[in-house]
Amino acid sequence: MAHIDLGVDENRFPGINGPMRFRPETAGPLNALAEALLHAPHPTLSAGERELIAAYVSGLNECVFCCSSHSAFAAAQLDAGMPLVQQVRADLDAADISAKLRALLRIAAAVQQDGRKVTTALVDAARAEGATDLEVHDTVLIAAAFCMYNRYVDGLGTLPAADPAVYEQSAQRIKEHGYGAPA
Amino acid sequence: MAHIDLGVDENRFPGINGPMRFRPETAGPLNALAEALLHAPHPTLSAGERELIAAYVSGLNECVFCCSSHSAFAAAQLDAGMPLVQQVRADLDAADISAKLRALLRIAAAVQQDGRKVTTALVDAARAEGATDLEVHDTVLIAAAFCMYNRYVDGLGTLPAADPAVYEQSAQRIKEHGYGAPA
Repeated sequence: MAHIDLGVDENRFPGINGPMRFRPETAGPLNALAEALLHAPHPTLSAGERELIAAYVSGLNECVFCCSSHSAFAAAQLDAGMPLVQQVRADLDAADISAKLRALLRIAAAVQQDGRKVTTALVDAARAEGATDLEVHDTVLIAAAFCMYNRYVDGLGTLPAADPAVYEQSAQRIKEHGYGAPA
Repeated sequence: MAHIDLGVDENRFPGINGPMRFRPETAGPLNALAEALLHAPHPTLSAGERELIAAYVSGLNECVFCCSSHSAFAAAQLDAGMPLVQQVRADLDAADISAKLRALLRIAAAVQQDGRKVTTALVDAARAEGATDLEVHDTVLIAAAFCMYNRYVDGLGTLPAADPAVYEQSAQRIKEHGYGAPA
């Protein structure tokens, strides 16, 4: 059970859904940020690639609800599906992704620890694989944002979904409608 | 110099101001979140108290730009001003604040480390001093949000303000107009 009374059935509204309903004034900007970072059209990074960064960082933060959610959201929007998400989370060096995406994920891992861990060498390595300024910016902000979402979900002691099918259902909604539609 | 070309004079737009101008699509939700958490009317926590939580967490994350900014924003909106902000940052146990605010700041410190560090005991201690569910929620989200803002600012390698007077100037703007007005 969450640390505060969220005013909802937590089994029906697991993870971030309870706090979002508890405080609509902050839910609006939180959803708008996720929409801009993960679902809005992007010149070069697909929604699946951006969700993969979110899933990867949430895994590093060991946030079960967010990692399960964004792994499902990434899998639903990547041709290679969940096996690729699991591969990236288990062994980034060996995963079957582009050298550019691997370099961006290394930047995300640095951000997860501390912003100051992002070195010129990490950014130069991404740039050498073709990463743009916008891609570096968005990778840093996605990783930073999930250091917020993960802490929000776990800091309030919310529960993950009891039934894993919930994540796949959410994935279909996110893929089609993004982060504007109510859970 | 920042890791990417932000397209602005970094001396004129230090810290988060450069990335905000580089990517207005994400700046909108980031400002709206800060406005809702730190400046919008609140039933029980003053803007100064909420800025103090932001400054405290930014100090724990050692983010010079954010800590200097929100320390100035807190000082401008607290009767006891900068000496109190410095006292809280230097020695929370001894600082001349209410027992409730101290308990909320202890929750914020736990969030800064990891959401899972927020224990029932920490929340019960805040509740025993009169903290409401909304205060616990907002404390957790302010602390989580600054784990994002701090990583955003430092992960992109932005510079703090060369002239400390910049923070006091921003503080007057934030106090009067909140987070909607351009820097």
